[in-house]
Amino acid sequence: MPEQPELTIQGWGPPAARVATVAAPEDGAGDDGVLELAPDPDPLTALPKAARKHLSRELGWTPRSTPPVPVRDIRLAPSRLPASARAAFTALLGEDAVADDRPSRLSHAGGKSYLDLLRRRAGDASDAPDAVLTPGSTEQVAALLRTCSDLGVVVVPFGGGTSVVGGLAGTDVDDRPVVSVDLRRMSSVRALDVPSSLVTVGPGMRGPALEQALAPEGLTLGHLPQSWEFATLGGYAATRSAGQSSTGVGRFDDLVAGLTLATPSGVLELGNPPASAAGPDLLGLALGSEGTLGVITELRLRVRPRPRSTHHEGWAFRSWAAGLATLQRLARHDLLPDVVRLSDPDETDANLRQATGAGARVLRGSLRARRRGDGCLLVVGWEGLPTIVRARRAAASSVLRDGGAVRLGTRVGESWVRHRFAAPYLRDRLMSAGLLVETLETAATWTTLPAVYDAVRRALRGALTTGGRRPLVMAHVSHGYPTGASLYVTVLADRDDELPLQQWLTAKRAATDALLAAGGTLTHHHAVGVDHRPWLAQEVGPLGVDVLRAVKQRLDPRGICNPGVLLPD
Amino acid sequence: MPEQPELTIQGWGPPAARVATVAAPEDGAGDDGVLELAPDPDPLTALPKAARKHLSRELGWTPRSTPPVPVRDIRLAPSRLPASARAAFTALLGEDAVADDRPSRLSHAGGKSYLDLLRRRAGDASDAPDAVLTPGSTEQVAALLRTCSDLGVVVVPFGGGTSVVGGLAGTDVDDRPVVSVDLRRMSSVRALDVPSSLVTVGPGMRGPALEQALAPEGLTLGHLPQSWEFATLGGYAATRSAGQSSTGVGRFDDLVAGLTLATPSGVLELGNPPASAAGPDLLGLALGSEGTLGVITELRLRVRPRPRSTHHEGWAFRSWAAGLATLQRLARHDLLPDVVRLSDPDETDANLRQATGAGARVLRGSLRARRRGDGCLLVVGWEGLPTIVRARRAAASSVLRDGGAVRLGTRVGESWVRHRFAAPYLRDRLMSAGLLVETLETAATWTTLPAVYDAVRRALRGALTTGGRRPLVMAHVSHGYPTGASLYVTVLADRDDELPLQQWLTAKRAATDALLAAGGTLTHHHAVGVDHRPWLAQEVGPLGVDVLRAVKQRLDPRGICNPGVLLPD
Repeated sequence: MPEQPELTIQGWGPPAARVATVAAPEDGAGDDGVLELAPDPDPLTALPKAARKHLSRELGWTPRSTPPVPVRDIRLAPSRLPASARAAFTALLGEDAVADDRPSRLSHAGGKSYLDLLRRRAGDASDAPDAVLTPGSTEQVAALLRTCSDLGVVVVPFGGGTSVVGGLAGTDVDDRPVVSVDLRRMSSVRALDVPSSLVTVGPGMRGPALEQALAPEGLTLGHLPQSWEFATLGGYAATRSAGQSSTGVGRFDDLVAGLTLATPSGVLELGNPPASAAGPDLLGLALGSEGTLGVITELRLRVRPRPRSTHHEGWAFRSWAAGLATLQRLARHDLLPDVVRLSDPDETDANLRQATGAGARVLRGSLRARRRGDGCLLVVGWEGLPTIVRARRAAASSVLRDGGAVRLGTRVGESWVRHRFAAPYLRDRLMSAGLLVETLETAATWTTLPAVYDAVRRALRGALTTGGRRPLVMAHVSHGYPTGASLYVTVLADRDDELPLQQWLTAKRAATDALLAAGGTLTHHHAVGVDHRPWLAQEVGPLGVDVLRAVKQRLDPRGICNPGVLLPD
Repeated sequence: MPEQPELTIQGWGPPAARVATVAAPEDGAGDDGVLELAPDPDPLTALPKAARKHLSRELGWTPRSTPPVPVRDIRLAPSRLPASARAAFTALLGEDAVADDRPSRLSHAGGKSYLDLLRRRAGDASDAPDAVLTPGSTEQVAALLRTCSDLGVVVVPFGGGTSVVGGLAGTDVDDRPVVSVDLRRMSSVRALDVPSSLVTVGPGMRGPALEQALAPEGLTLGHLPQSWEFATLGGYAATRSAGQSSTGVGRFDDLVAGLTLATPSGVLELGNPPASAAGPDLLGLALGSEGTLGVITELRLRVRPRPRSTHHEGWAFRSWAAGLATLQRLARHDLLPDVVRLSDPDETDANLRQATGAGARVLRGSLRARRRGDGCLLVVGWEGLPTIVRARRAAASSVLRDGGAVRLGTRVGESWVRHRFAAPYLRDRLMSAGLLVETLETAATWTTLPAVYDAVRRALRGALTTGGRRPLVMAHVSHGYPTGASLYVTVLADRDDELPLQQWLTAKRAATDALLAAGGTLTHHHAVGVDHRPWLAQEVGPLGVDVLRAVKQRLDPRGICNPGVLLPD
């Protein structure tokens, strides 16, 4: 097992421990040091000077240093786990697999949404579990769930801890003790069936480790969300993740051929590759269940040969409308590249301002010369067999040119590849400089998408424009389908240091109401968690919610499985 | 609405009415004449003489005339529908939408499995519904289901009536009255969103009518199962159908972007195109629900541009193993053609014997000359944009040649296209000549498929070899996936005229036990119906069955929705 990086308690990374190999660790960091966010000598340098000046003017933002409280100052209530429950867990899993020390509990508190980070940076860990358990097998998880059901202990499954929708909230209306079930000990390749392109893995395995295990066989999974360095395969399944190449490779849903779901009522083996018509699809009930039905303890995933040819490049459109229309035409003819990422004018502008160096200058000049100075940047990528990639690229390029796009070349594409996991690191630094930084996402049919785009932007601007503050709302299409596309929105604003949580909650509520009213889906790939559950009935109907409740009632009659998320109370 | 052909009561077709336009109708055919199987002057001519002689020798079959009883002699019990229920339905739907006349009831009795046809040909219509209702809207269906739930009347949804697994059995342990809810009045295109490639249709619409409606827009659905002339779009969804081009176009599951399901507890609107991560997939619960949760009253389907280029051709392999290994390699590299159909040696031999004319003679000679005389025939087809088809064909052809396949040219492919819907018509004539003719299907991973193939053949041969009889068991791969393929098995045997039902039930039981034990799925695209339900718990586990029961209990608490199928009693 290769050394895996750890997320910090108050942000993404890199942790203090990685910086500590260069500089001496801070005095007094104690046990928590390894999970402490690396101190940024000057958070204001997170952005190039020009971008900083531009943002100050645009947002009404006063750049300022707003670092998190030291990890040692985070408030943590004593564990509420009864000694009898602790003894039962120890008997079941062994002493090493039951932890209620401070670093363990802190590092399993919540996820990585802006709201999570606000709380943690302010020293609040009231959502930390009472203990962290690390079972080692399906049988142990199944026994654990039965025990927890009997004892009235809430179970929050923990994969990578990267949820951005409050999926690890652990809140319970009955205020029962909460254990985090960390699946890190179940993280190996269990079987590989090369002819059938199937790999069987533990749910706690991360993407990089799986890719490393598959590489010698010439295989890849190819699922690359922004959380790739930290998120786990079980987490992808539980949240219906999409990756940056999902337009071509398929959503994570499409890569799951089968899985094992341990529930308080027993173990389900779901999925019959390659396909079955034997009744309704129960596998699809486990995907996106977010821990509310049980714990995913094994996954059978579809892998593929590592692509012999990959090609990323940039194109520029004169307008957002032209870009969308052209992507729609590509989609209709099944010509979408494997990676598709169309930035709106605001995001294009921000990307160019943030880019530094000669390359960026040349690109900006080139766009202006072609009257694309206020246009939209499209990054596309193809992967696969060289002859097929060539034919698809040629056909797609012709559609792109017909749509008025100008080819910018591979440099833009390769730069995107290099920075594909960078945004959450940057977020930490922007948050330390007094900024609100959050994202949200949706999807809609091609016909509805422009209205959803307008509605979300209007709602966010309306909610976040107060007292001299104006938000910057940037968006891009991140995934294309024959019937529509996703929309990923990034928001920057001067943070309200008095009421930062309320500032975002108000904006999020307005944006969600607006996107649902316009015909978007509640979430394209971030899942429901705590943050979206007030709207679930609007998405699937009250009767749809009741169907989910009926399934939960059968599998988890005492309601111990992640009760805080997905289903409204 | 174009004139649509009707299935006959005792078989597939063509009905007597179509023949009657040439010859005068039989005396005394009465009301039932339109649904009577066309009389075959000599059923023994169903096969060319050489094939007939060959089969007699192989099967121990005595060709003989075994026609069905005249439709007027089919026994039909009086309708059990209480007058009060009839009055309630009339009040709800109008007089024209409630029928309990003999032809209506007979033409809605059961489906088109071999067992169904045996019963109907012998004059048994004990599974006929007590009345046939034809609602016209989602609201009417929803009201109807509430009424039936209140009155204790069983509802069997009726689309095309082409089930081959007893999906329309209408059996009920409580022996309540049964109504067939025929969706023919809900069969129009309701909306077309061209940019989003989405069409909204009524569930009673058939494939040919939809293709006719889409053609002027340059669009197609492209779902072409063997039942295409008769089956309905709602039926495809309820049974998780696959079509002959599903390897390329996708299973029907993949074409459903959303649907409306009316249940006794209310109406569900399911599916959020293009994609959503808002909780588990409820759409997948409706797909394959086979009428047990309610009635599908509307579908939102993904359409695509009509292909600019189509190309079908034949190839020959030296052996089944070489054919499977090569398809697996194509699948692994995402190079499978849109149509893939690999016949085993027995099916290849039978196809060549059945083929007549100069073309068939040339092909047989050519195969013998290339030492493929006992080989396997592969039919492949590509559709789409010419440049993409060219690149995919070239890449696939290179893999096929590497696998030892010899190209036979387009004639074989085009002949397959011409006869793609012919088999069920031939079955009628073979049944009239004293033969058992039935099919079954499964799917398995590439690694497991050879064992499943062997096990099924062994089981069928074991069960059907008695007293001088020997079955002919033929198989082909009909759909390919990256992880595996489907297997479609056709069985011919001399019929046991004393105990024909038992003869097949014994064989089916042996085959199903064998394929499940070897790792196949219970059904790849025929659904569960009555015939497969004893094995559902083996497929999804007892807890999986309980989850389905919990969903049914919430939506259909009185158990009126197609109680005879899918879920074991």
